Amino acid sequence: MGIVLGDNRYGKAEVHLVRVDRGADRHGLTDVTVGVSLSGELADVHLRGDNSNVLTTDAQKNTVFAFAAEGVGQVEEFGLRLARHFVASQPAIRRAEVRLTEQPWDRIEGSDGPAPHSFARNGTCLRTARVRVTADAAEVVSGLTGLTLLNTTDSEFWGFATDRYTTLAETRDRILATAVDAQWRHLSSDADFGKSYPDVRRLLAAAFAETYSYSLQQTLYAMGERVLAAHPEIAEIRLSLPNKHHFLVDLSPHDVENTDTVYYAADRPYGLIEGTVTRDDVAPSMMDW
Amino acid sequence: MGIVLGDNRYGKAEVHLVRVDRGADRHGLTDVTVGVSLSGELADVHLRGDNSNVLTTDAQKNTVFAFAAEGVGQVEEFGLRLARHFVASQPAIRRAEVRLTEQPWDRIEGSDGPAPHSFARNGTCLRTARVRVTADAAEVVSGLTGLTLLNTTDSEFWGFATDRYTTLAETRDRILATAVDAQWRHLSSDADFGKSYPDVRRLLAAAFAETYSYSLQQTLYAMGERVLAAHPEIAEIRLSLPNKHHFLVDLSPHDVENTDTVYYAADRPYGLIEGTVTRDDVAPSMMDW
Amino acid sequence: MGIVLGDNRYGKAEVHLVRVDRGADRHGLTDVTVGVSLSGELADVHLRGDNSNVLTTDAQKNTVFAFAAEGVGQVEEFGLRLARHFVASQPAIRRAEVRLTEQPWDRIEGSDGPAPHSFARNGTCLRTARVRVTADAAEVVSGLTGLTLLNTTDSEFWGFATDRYTTLAETRDRILATAVDAQWRHLSSDADFGKSYPDVRRLLAAAFAETYSYSLQQTLYAMGERVLAAHPEIAEIRLSLPNKHHFLVDLSPHDVENTDTVYYAADRPYGLIEGTVTRDDVAPSMMDW
Amino acid sequence: MGIVLGDNRYGKAEVHLVRVDRGADRHGLTDVTVGVSLSGELADVHLRGDNSNVLTTDAQKNTVFAFAAEGVGQVEEFGLRLARHFVASQPAIRRAEVRLTEQPWDRIEGSDGPAPHSFARNGTCLRTARVRVTADAAEVVSGLTGLTLLNTTDSEFWGFATDRYTTLAETRDRILATAVDAQWRHLSSDADFGKSYPDVRRLLAAAFAETYSYSLQQTLYAMGERVLAAHPEIAEIRLSLPNKHHFLVDLSPHDVENTDTVYYAADRPYGLIEGTVTRDDVAPSMMDW
Repeated sequence: MGIVLGDNRYGKAEVHLVRVDRGADRHGLTDVTVGVSLSGELADVHLRGDNSNVLTTDAQKNTVFAFAAEGVGQVEEFGLRLARHFVASQPAIRRAEVRLTEQPWDRIEGSDGPAPHSFARNGTCLRTARVRVTADAAEVVSGLTGLTLLNTTDSEFWGFATDRYTTLAETRDRILATAVDAQWRHLSSDADFGKSYPDVRRLLAAAFAETYSYSLQQTLYAMGERVLAAHPEIAEIRLSLPNKHHFLVDLSPHDVENTDTVYYAADRPYGLIEGTVTRDDVAPSMMDW
Repeated sequence: MGIVLGDNRYGKAEVHLVRVDRGADRHGLTDVTVGVSLSGELADVHLRGDNSNVLTTDAQKNTVFAFAAEGVGQVEEFGLRLARHFVASQPAIRRAEVRLTEQPWDRIEGSDGPAPHSFARNGTCLRTARVRVTADAAEVVSGLTGLTLLNTTDSEFWGFATDRYTTLAETRDRILATAVDAQWRHLSSDADFGKSYPDVRRLLAAAFAETYSYSLQQTLYAMGERVLAAHPEIAEIRLSLPNKHHFLVDLSPHDVENTDTVYYAADRPYGLIEGTVTRDDVAPSMMDW
Repeated sequence: MGIVLGDNRYGKAEVHLVRVDRGADRHGLTDVTVGVSLSGELADVHLRGDNSNVLTTDAQKNTVFAFAAEGVGQVEEFGLRLARHFVASQPAIRRAEVRLTEQPWDRIEGSDGPAPHSFARNGTCLRTARVRVTADAAEVVSGLTGLTLLNTTDSEFWGFATDRYTTLAETRDRILATAVDAQWRHLSSDADFGKSYPDVRRLLAAAFAETYSYSLQQTLYAMGERVLAAHPEIAEIRLSLPNKHHFLVDLSPHDVENTDTVYYAADRPYGLIEGTVTRDDVAPSMMDW
Repeated sequence: MGIVLGDNRYGKAEVHLVRVDRGADRHGLTDVTVGVSLSGELADVHLRGDNSNVLTTDAQKNTVFAFAAEGVGQVEEFGLRLARHFVASQPAIRRAEVRLTEQPWDRIEGSDGPAPHSFARNGTCLRTARVRVTADAAEVVSGLTGLTLLNTTDSEFWGFATDRYTTLAETRDRILATAVDAQWRHLSSDADFGKSYPDVRRLLAAAFAETYSYSLQQTLYAMGERVLAAHPEIAEIRLSLPNKHHFLVDLSPHDVENTDTVYYAADRPYGLIEGTVTRDDVAPSMMDW
């Protein structure tokens, strides 16, 4: 019985890059945070401190900035370019993974219309991407995080299993709220990511709004199904949905009526519903998401 | 020489209230977090543990929810109603302060137009308010926090004082970025807060975008001045503007040209510019903001 | 080609439990945050909103509190008791996973020695555990997070691979700092977790301190190897080590000498070194960590 | 009626400095985050963008690092040295304020005793200081933040005022928990800060532990009084104490007895008790804390 090195990887995390495209009439702004992870022939550095196969994380960071000089484009494509570069240029690197988070910005509305080179951060919903590249394969997962949604009605919850520890009352009308964390895997690394992203985001919100819900699980499946039905180029989608509880406040001790109007928004504990909606004929992902 | 009790206050913080207005055709949503602070004849509780003048913070929380049953409206008005209630109903309470933070939500766009009862959280810019009420006075401060703005050009920085520790190069073109934290005091507690809030927010962003800047201080003053010039009902405005540094990345070691395109967005340290723009004929605020 | 439900689970997250053991002479305090995830026959709830197999997350929360009435003990054991209960009592539940995070507290030192029932939170290093139970298996992973360590010397970094994007200078003496996130899997669910936890924590810190390091990867392996060598009951250990960069500040422009004394502690980007040290004859884990 | 510039200041925030003292036998480590704020003749920069009186925030940062080369010592003294430098060397600067936060580190215990140059971060309680210097005065406020304390008994709460919104039950035994944020002002800028800091911290915890409490206000006053009684060199102390509620869980629906053992630790809302304990013969502070 021996002690050995198992799975491992290393890289630079949270490289925060801002790119300005300076057009004659107006500027564009891209705001992306990038993390790189490399794996390969790294036994020597772990076992003997021999760094000869180690491309420094500082060089990885420099590469992110240098590649951005040629343009960023869709985050998935920027990630693929970076990952392919690391695998192609470093013989000891057998697998490169790049994670990207994009912060959207809106153009500021000035006194005389849209400002040509001024922007305001837009929201808490961030676009994400993760790519993995090896010598003979590439996989792309797109996503979003922080899309917080709330339905004031059309949500019931009853008919659940009960045991000695069950005290929850059944309800025929409740607030349903969540903060969507979604990731979807593309069948090909060659998809039109710029086109699918806004549509998937729109479909997730619309499916949440339009599903009459008997449980958050049902809503989760409906959201995923709607995305797969509309996007044949997507193999599967994974959703992580916290159930952000809103409790109707009992105002009767104060002789005040609460006509399903006043709620307390609780932080924790919270429910957490996680699930995958997938096609039944696709190969499994090679990534640990 | 004796040891005595000085300034003091107590209350309930971060009461997170969500109100649903259930119209026949569509619902409305209000999301406000409320903090209450009460001051008055509280020596006995500090010195002897005698709670007879203490309205519990639990009751304060209940009051927030109960008052919300009658409607919330503008956060400043909701705060005034609450603060006036505490001062009027509790003889020992001489001063009530209420702080409010409102999270805006957008209506979700469904497949067939705006969804009637579905919402998505809108952004990182929160509306704030602070009111203070005593037996014979009331003061209202409105505000916002988290409005993150960026100009890609029209910002210079040169001609500054230099000393032994100065190494910064002068620049004739830089990114200027900040996260606005603004608070403005109204001359009267009777203003039209619902009308002024969106306009002040719009003016702050527009003044940021439209000021050709030689320093963030100059931009700060221009932002405040624009608000006071347009809003005679506002006595003063206080702005706290972090200077969110974006550094042009030197790509020359890699033989790559950086044509004012690729920046590194630094977190800290950061500059912090704080200032008040005020009218010269107004009485000072009675609040510590 | 059809759209189907893939992997899924649901539960209650972040149930924050505090238990007081009221001895005659002195009290004990246990502070644990618990998350539960259940999987099993859950197709009906996803596809049709039929909740008959759903034990509510509210009941899961109640179960955590009710089980704590009988004592908590080692977090691994508390997790096992909970997970076994869910699988044993709910026929539809085929797999239960419980995650636990324990906040340590120290007894306050009073004027006359240790206070009998007063405590102060101890530190940023939290103890963690994760257990997974099915009908015929149980797996336990112990861990810690937030153990921040720093060596002021005995760390070199040179001899690394270089490419067009490499600008980092080699160094024969640098600060090495990290925040340890470690998880170790036990060969049996029946181990003495209360005995191994403090020893593993001690070994991780000592191995970090005593390894003359040529790279953080080498330090990572040395830390893992020391744990496995001393603890035959542990199958593998996974370490995630951010490289918290400390840069020597160049004070020469101010005519001040920096004799390896003054450093700037950077936040991001940071290096991230992740690796597993394992025995070569153990079965793979059934959990996704 | 005119629009004018009011109070203002500017500086560099969150300069994170680590100093290593390299002794022959063992090293020392100091970890301080520094913020500088300068005020003075700054009308021109606000009104006209004229930076000639502006010492750049970059130079302020450089000054922090350069001064650290000569040693840091007590954070109050380091702050005074910096603040005095800015006021003395820049004619336009009339007031300098420096805020400092110190992260303590413990020496790691190695296999053969204390490691000579290895450290582990110690806890969530940070030491703070704030100094303000003008041409003819200097004021020093020391403090701490994040000292989280809990008593499992010796806390009652009853006899409070009641109104229509009061539903809280009286209790003769409850958990009392808080996270202490304390700041104390010294009568002189020449005190022995290194001696008083650990003693004040000790006294605050001991007074919390040893006060049989009828309200958190009473505990607050007892904590402040104990500090002032033991430290004649301290003019006043300000305490901000969140009341971190711990609710006894009702287990009776599950037929389980809860013998004052199992509590739910709530996050928010929380009570917030703020107060000053002061000497009755001291001049007021010139700082806004």
